[in-house]
This record gives sequence, structure tokens and C-alpha cells, in this order.
Amino acid sequence: MGGVKKIAVLGSTGSIGQQALDVIRARPYELQVVALAANRNVGLLERQIREFRPGMFYSSVKPRTKYGAELLSMAEIAAHPGVDLVFVATSGMAGLEPTVAALRTGKMVALASKEVLVMAGENVIREANRHQGQIVPIDSEHSAIWQCLRGEEDKPERLLLTASGGPFYRYSESQLAEVTPEQALSHPVWKMGRKVTIDSATLMNKGLEVIEAHWLFSLPFDSIEILVHPQSVVHSMVEFMDGSVKAQLSSPDMRLPIQYALSYARRWSNPELPRLDWHGMKSLDFEPVDYGRFPCLRLAVDAGRSGGTYPAALCAADEVAVELFLGGAIGFLDIAKIVQETLEQHQNTPEPSLEEILAADAWARECAASLSSGCRAEPRRTSNREVER
Amino acid sequence: MGGVKKIAVLGSTGSIGQQALDVIRARPYELQVVALAANRNVGLLERQIREFRPGMFYSSVKPRTKYGAELLSMAEIAAHPGVDLVFVATSGMAGLEPTVAALRTGKMVALASKEVLVMAGENVIREANRHQGQIVPIDSEHSAIWQCLRGEEDKPERLLLTASGGPFYRYSESQLAEVTPEQALSHPVWKMGRKVTIDSATLMNKGLEVIEAHWLFSLPFDSIEILVHPQSVVHSMVEFMDGSVKAQLSSPDMRLPIQYALSYARRWSNPELPRLDWHGMKSLDFEPVDYGRFPCLRLAVDAGRSGGTYPAALCAADEVAVELFLGGAIGFLDIAKIVQETLEQHQNTPEPSLEEILAADAWARECAASLSSGCRAEPRRTSNREVER
Repeated sequence: MGGVKKIAVLGSTGSIGQQALDVIRARPYELQVVALAANRNVGLLERQIREFRPGMFYSSVKPRTKYGAELLSMAEIAAHPGVDLVFVATSGMAGLEPTVAALRTGKMVALASKEVLVMAGENVIREANRHQGQIVPIDSEHSAIWQCLRGEEDKPERLLLTASGGPFYRYSESQLAEVTPEQALSHPVWKMGRKVTIDSATLMNKGLEVIEAHWLFSLPFDSIEILVHPQSVVHSMVEFMDGSVKAQLSSPDMRLPIQYALSYARRWSNPELPRLDWHGMKSLDFEPVDYGRFPCLRLAVDAGRSGGTYPAALCAADEVAVELFLGGAIGFLDIAKIVQETLEQHQNTPEPSLEEILAADAWARECAASLSSGCRAEPRRTSNREVER
Repeated sequence: MGGVKKIAVLGSTGSIGQQALDVIRARPYELQVVALAANRNVGLLERQIREFRPGMFYSSVKPRTKYGAELLSMAEIAAHPGVDLVFVATSGMAGLEPTVAALRTGKMVALASKEVLVMAGENVIREANRHQGQIVPIDSEHSAIWQCLRGEEDKPERLLLTASGGPFYRYSESQLAEVTPEQALSHPVWKMGRKVTIDSATLMNKGLEVIEAHWLFSLPFDSIEILVHPQSVVHSMVEFMDGSVKAQLSSPDMRLPIQYALSYARRWSNPELPRLDWHGMKSLDFEPVDYGRFPCLRLAVDAGRSGGTYPAALCAADEVAVELFLGGAIGFLDIAKIVQETLEQHQNTPEPSLEEILAADAWARECAASLSSGCRAEPRRTSNREVER
């Protein structure tokens, strides 16, 4: 059994962070929270600290009390010798520094923040290889691939990333133009944070997952395909060189990939996790993805192929654009437009350092924000009504 | 790489045996045929011996020449120190003795004859464990399960065996009564031998596979479920204790599980093996199996649960009944009746020796043959027409 695994949960007040704590809470003999870190939700962080009594914590807001724990930066927590596994569920690029710090000390990183690999995949994988650190995926798609690759000696030939298609997959171009933040926030299958939910609706999320898969499984982009699979039961598949395909299936519940990352290389019985109901299930449907109506997907994959600081600029521009959309400042289709224009204006830096990546991120945020005024000026609703006529 | 694997192909003139030789022919640097064995098709055996030039052979018909090779029994071939892997693709119980002989010398047995494990699973697995012999499955379903279990440390909780349902899955009872041998021999998906094709139509084959899975993966019968899946793309699935399910998928082609058994633990690229066409595939359908219209399935699973010599009696009675059906002596539904009556009259021997298993086999053959006269006497076709009115 090897004793209790000591875990630092970074981003513990977010949706994934809370589900990680649910899993840890249920396995007191195997898992222990030794550090918690959150951004602004100090009230929830306080309750979590009182429950799990970690020795270290981080909060971006100056805390009223220290709860008898040590206040450290996330990178200090990640590098701390008292931590076995760092669970990175922070949003945006906040997870980059602690991920690198954990890998440099040879730790296992359970990575839920896809921006880390998307923005700095080459740097992060290099650090992991150099210091025998290990990244285990939390995204259901990458966890599925990781499970399918388990025990295989030969590299896969192809990854088949499944996509639910999001709530608007059957929408026409003109319907997409009218999508409101409220509609976009109600994802049909997964309960997730606001940013990821919008990224799922634009398929930007699937594009980021392609880049993530490229780095996690060191496969060329041409070997990664997307299949739309509305039921979200098959979480992804792997095709081997003999033509054999392995798939991982389960009810859509993030606690399964979270638990698998924490229980690895074992599996744990967990009555809380739902079972697939084969008697109720009729069919599993698949279709090729439509790049045409969802330009964010192509933008992301192309940025991944181009490499350098393009993926960082993509992520940053998308984050700004999604915020603007959620605030009502721009329309749904403007998200892709802002990302595309930012990428067109971006001056790439090949093989960038982490500093250069962060600089590209800052530049793209400014660029995207300035572009948004142009979007706002467009008589969006009027022109859409014209299209519908 | 470990040098060339020396292979004895027993049952080399049958459908599976010939496909095994196809796979071996394509890998001359990894695989070598050192022995061939066939039953009655001496002409084909002769051509195979001329092509592969094995040092040993067996033929049940006295050969005109020895082709410069040594004539041995199948058990002698299986135990021979010059053989690394014994590919058992004989029909019926002929594979039992050589399988046990191979396992007793600690060899790997690629097992395509399901009767071996069905009739003598307990004995065979005991010999394998005692002498570090290994059985690798060739059936597409068991190969799928074996692939899904690869690298997993914990026992699965449930096996989901898929079944195409055979050509008559949508037939009513009265339609089933009218099925002719010609109709039954045209299986919609797999090209197979005559006996297996009829067993697929009665679902007896799926019942035998349940018993086989029970022994191969040491799981109780309650943990083995059958799902009808008409497309035959998902070859079987495994559910783990955390609710995660792994499935193996491929175009239905027996050369894939055959090659996987021979290439294990590697996988080999093979342009002859078809790829799944995800762009042409629309959906994968699943439904619970209907035990009612296919009594052979329940008879087989019950015989497996009862253990002892019941499975041997089941196999023997089925073999006789299928022969009678193919010869036009009995109707399609009489196959199940003969098997059922044989089992009802059978005196079970718990924990039987191999001799007792062979005795049960001989007894059941006689019993089934004598019962068939009763079937013939029934005014089958008349009564069916009455049902249809």
C-alpha cells in the first residue's frame, strides 16, 4: 500500500478542486490533504482548511488568520518535500509555475488546468523528463487515453478524442450568432466552471485538448482526431498499429478521472461513482467534427501546430474574449473573431522560455481587449436578423 | 526481440488454422512453423508442409509420404522442447490432450478451440498454474477482454461479452423452427467453420464463451454479462471496480486476435488488417440478450454453473445435434431440445478427471444420437404451420 499519499490541492475552491476534495475525503487511509490553495473564494477556503487541517496554504487575498498553517506561494507548496502529489486545478496560467516547481522536485502532478500544457507544453514536458516528474491527466478525455495505454509497450498510432459537441452543435451560423451567456452556461452533460463551459460551447476546449494530448502522449497533430459523440459515454479511444482500438467508457462524472489519478496504479471501489446502465443504453453515436461552424477548434489546432508562443496567445485571447462574452460586451461568434485577429497580429517566438510565454500571454490579453471595441461597434443583432430573413 | 518464436499449429487446415498460417507467413523474422497437424484434409496439409517445411507433423489419416518430417501425435508435438508456442485450433475435444501436454511443459498455448476450456476448464487451468504454462485466447471476445485487462493490477468487477446475435436474432419462435442448414450457414459477420456458425445461430457459441471466460479470467458466472451488439465492432468490454469500462474495438477479422496472440506483448503493424472507418460509422447499438428464444444460451450457462461433467455433456450433445441438423435429420429448434434432454439424463461427476470428462463426452454423444430419433418422429413442419396460422 505504501502509506498515505500527501496531496496539495491547488485551486481547491473551484469545481474540480472541490470534487478532488470529495474523493480525498472518502479515502482517509490512503490520501491526506497537506496543502490547499485558492484564489479569491476565501470563505470556502477557510471552511476547507478547518475541515482538512493542512500544514500549508495559499490565498491570493490576504487572509484574516493563518488557521495555524503556514502561508506559502503555490510554487513553494509544490516544491515542498512534505508533498507527494500536486493536484493542479487552478484556472488559466496560474498553474504553470507550481506545475514546473513540482516536476523539478520529481513529483507527480495531477493536471486539471489544461492551459499549463497548452501554453508551455514543450517546457513542462522537458522539466518532467529531466527530473523524473510525472504528469497524470484529469480531463476525462486524456484520462481515457491514459487508461487505454496502460500496460501497452508500443506507441499508439492514433488518438480518437471524443467531443459531446456542446449545447449548440446542431445550430446554424445565424443561430450561433444569437447565443446568450445564459444559454451557453447550461452544458448538457458536464457540470463545470464558467470558462470551460463556454470553451465547450465554442469547441475551443476540444482544440485545447488536442494540444494537451499532443504533449501528454507525444504524438503528432496528424495522429489526433476528433469524433463527435453526443452521449459522452466513450471518453476517448486509442488506435494501435495492428488496427486494434481501445476505448474507455463511463458515466460522465469528473470524480472518476480524479480518483483514478489519485488511486493509480490501483483502482478503488467507490459507491458514489455512477455505473453505466447497459440495459438502458440504446446506442452510441459518432460523427466527424464540423470545423466550419466552430472556428475556435481550427484556430486552436493550428496554433498548436505552429507552436512557439502561438498557443499562449490563443489561450490568453480566448480568456479575454470569453470574459467579454459573459459580460455581454460581445456576441458568441465574436469570441473566435477576437482570437483569430489576435493570432494574426501575434509575433511568434519559437522555442520560448517561460518568461517569453508569459510575455506573449500579457501581450495577447491587451491585444484581445483592444480588439473587442471593434466587435462591440458592429451592429451584430441587426445584421443577424438580416441573415435570418 | 528474443529471436524467432517456434510455433506448432494444430488444426492447420481449418478456418482458424489457415488464418494463423497467413499471419505467420507475413512475419518470417519473428515466427516459424515447426509443426503442423490436421485431421482429414490431407491434400491441404501436404501443401502446407511443402510450404512451411516443419520438422514434425500429425495427420489422422495415414500419410502416403512423411515429407522429410517426423510423424508424431499432437500431444508429443505439444510437449516437444523444439516448440515455443502451441496454436490449438483443432475442432471439438481433440485439442484437450495437446493443450494439457503443452501447459505441463510450461509453454504458451494460443487457444482457439473453446471446447478445451468448456469441457475441462478446471483441469486445464490447474495444469497451467502448476507448471507456469500460459493460455492466451484467440476468440475475438476473449482477446478483447485480455487486451482490456492488460496492465491492470486489480481484478475486473464485470465482463461484458458482446454477441452479434447471429442471423436469426429478430426471428420469432415459429420462424426459428423453419430455419434450414443453408440459412444458418450464412453468418452475417464472421467467416467461420460450419459447427461454429450453427452454434452462433443458436447462441450456444455465446454460452460456451461465457464458460470459457469464467475459466480464463477466473470470474464468477454472475460477473459475466452478455450484450447483443449487431455491428460486431466492440468485441467485448471490462468493467472495473471504480465504474470505469474499457472496450476493445476493431473490424471483425480473426487475423487480429490471432496476430495479437502471436505478437504479444508487442503489437505489429499489418497492412492486411482492416481499420475501423470512423467516418462511415454511424452508431454502435447494444441491447440485453433474449434468453427466451435462444434456449441453448441458458443451457450452456447453467451447465457451466453446475460444473463437473455437465459442460462436457453439453458440448458433446451439441456437436451431435448440430451434425444431425446439418444433415437434415432434425430441425433448428431440436438442437436445444436434444442438448437439454441429454443434460437432464446426465449423471454428473463433480471434480472429474480428464478420463471422466472423456467418458461423459462419449456417453452424451450416444445419448444425444439416440434422442434424435424422437425428434425425427415429431411432425415438426405441420405443427409449425399451425402455430403460424
